[in-house]
Amino acid sequence: MAERTNAAPGSTSSAGTGEDAVASDVAIEDPAHNEFALIDRILERLGDAVASEILLPPGDDAAAWVPAGGAVIATADAMTEGSHWLPHLLSMYDVGWRCVAANVSDLAAMGATPQVLLVTAVLGPTMTIDDLDAFIDGLADGCRAHGVQIAGGDVVRGRSTTFSITALGAARLDRANRAIVLRRDGAHPGDVIAVSGTPGLAAAGMRLVEQARTDPPADAAIAAFRHPVGRVDLGLAAVAVGVPCAIDISDGLIQDLGHIAQRSGVGIEIDLEALPLPQAAVAFFGTEGARTLALAGGEDFELILVARQNVIESLEAEDLTIIGRVLEQHPGEVVIRQADGAPYPVPQGWDALRRWPLPRLQ
Amino acid sequence: MAERTNAAPGSTSSAGTGEDAVASDVAIEDPAHNEFALIDRILERLGDAVASEILLPPGDDAAAWVPAGGAVIATADAMTEGSHWLPHLLSMYDVGWRCVAANVSDLAAMGATPQVLLVTAVLGPTMTIDDLDAFIDGLADGCRAHGVQIAGGDVVRGRSTTFSITALGAARLDRANRAIVLRRDGAHPGDVIAVSGTPGLAAAGMRLVEQARTDPPADAAIAAFRHPVGRVDLGLAAVAVGVPCAIDISDGLIQDLGHIAQRSGVGIEIDLEALPLPQAAVAFFGTEGARTLALAGGEDFELILVARQNVIESLEAEDLTIIGRVLEQHPGEVVIRQADGAPYPVPQGWDALRRWPLPRLQ
Repeated sequence: MAERTNAAPGSTSSAGTGEDAVASDVAIEDPAHNEFALIDRILERLGDAVASEILLPPGDDAAAWVPAGGAVIATADAMTEGSHWLPHLLSMYDVGWRCVAANVSDLAAMGATPQVLLVTAVLGPTMTIDDLDAFIDGLADGCRAHGVQIAGGDVVRGRSTTFSITALGAARLDRANRAIVLRRDGAHPGDVIAVSGTPGLAAAGMRLVEQARTDPPADAAIAAFRHPVGRVDLGLAAVAVGVPCAIDISDGLIQDLGHIAQRSGVGIEIDLEALPLPQAAVAFFGTEGARTLALAGGEDFELILVARQNVIESLEAEDLTIIGRVLEQHPGEVVIRQADGAPYPVPQGWDALRRWPLPRLQ
Repeated sequence: MAERTNAAPGSTSSAGTGEDAVASDVAIEDPAHNEFALIDRILERLGDAVASEILLPPGDDAAAWVPAGGAVIATADAMTEGSHWLPHLLSMYDVGWRCVAANVSDLAAMGATPQVLLVTAVLGPTMTIDDLDAFIDGLADGCRAHGVQIAGGDVVRGRSTTFSITALGAARLDRANRAIVLRRDGAHPGDVIAVSGTPGLAAAGMRLVEQARTDPPADAAIAAFRHPVGRVDLGLAAVAVGVPCAIDISDGLIQDLGHIAQRSGVGIEIDLEALPLPQAAVAFFGTEGARTLALAGGEDFELILVARQNVIESLEAEDLTIIGRVLEQHPGEVVIRQADGAPYPVPQGWDALRRWPLPRLQ
């Protein structure tokens, strides 16, 4: 191959970088120094998580596949060190897994069938080949847990580590050629709000990792933080029974409900007492702490479904809890009601530009 | 909207970041500090470059659209500061434009119809709101030049600036349900190698920007470097007449020919004298310098087409030049022949992990 015969793979010098050049004492050196050798290594390590059965698997200028429905559904997220993970809280394996979960969860929230992922990796100067291998292993296991495969991507060296994931799936079209999906703007007054699982579990898990707590009730919370699984089957079931509106809980229950309220032009009222609190969160942080984590802790990747009550009930999902309702009043706003009807103060949610996801606990 | 009512948008404090926290003296502050406000600003600035006519435009968990053919074609690239651009050589407007060109070019190289892009942006601490606006303007103009629109994405803050772009398009299926595309593994002995434009023009442009040369012949080269346009129409025409094999010139002519040679299991022979050299490159760097730039300078985003000679000729493309042929001999290798048949030494190409793209000139 011409570029190998003629390349000087040990060299880190290059023309034109000038004083802005990246530091040359990079942690990833030969044999993985060459971009193409590194890609071969990654593809081999991914194993059956590579989409080798699609029309055109990784290796050409682009991947090609047939969507499993008339509409293609696509979402992309960036994950960057310092903002989305800190090394003492998540291993690179965990980061790889969460990259998959976060993106597939967005497809689950549409009621779409996830199919393939594209992954770009910018490797910062502290990234070792062991880190990369761990990331790839987490990515591969995350793919297996979500029934998706890697169809392509890119790997480059940079000043800090960032991964960007595009998740691609499909949905059916109705007779008017509209995609049959769960939308943020599909909430109507009279609908109920249902939530899957126990929101705040992942946020509790992060705090327990921070505090190095490993007592038995911590296990489920730590697993929810490190290895969450997007609710693909629930999203597909919801679209099948005619649920019109959903979102996944990535920014925190209140903030994500706010997106629905704003885009649907409706008010949302949540019953504080109806919130299904995670057992681990109550055990370690008390009822008030667990409520804060449930309302403002993000990255649970559970689903909020909004529909008529009989539609929600027809799902017969075991871990679905009705927690509130959609109103005509106060459009765009979310209000939490205590048992006596008084409003409950809403803790602040996760904003990617405000960095690390967790609300402060008292 | 709940997150606005309850957020403290001026605050840069956050729990859990510890000593690994990103520096708080970030350049992007209110009113664009809040992720959602920033996304609104970006969408407004993108204007008609936002894919507002697709099934589900930006604003939901994912975008939805109908592919313009039975197969979806997808490619993703990351662009990161210090590796893909240096501030004294490219403005943020140029970076935005090139993000589009580089990715759409990969679809052009497949003979696919480009449709939508997803863009994730990690904004480093030195990024100002003016930089972001300039990037968005370049992105929008790049979209207009390539006939594509932005369907979604993500914006977060990080330790250095990285953009990742996924370009999505479509291709038709044949009767056996195979995607009708231009493939890297489609070269056969007896085919000729054709190249569009004058490879090395963009690489010459970068050197001229470095040297602050603005004499008239420099203009075209600098434009090719700063605002390249992927060859979408040529790719579509090639697939229509039955060209089986293509790649775009992103890593350098020799390196990209090497991908074809390796994946097709064939040898490739290039006639040195047949190379169409850029006028500006010859004028500023002499014939030998222009040859080096043509063979090893990447990011021209021109196309290499490989097919029977009569198929290439049926394209009647004005700027297409036959530069060599496909052989059974020396599979996986590319050889350049001088007029007397002697091999010409191949300069080193661009490897993303080796940093900045340009080969050394003597």
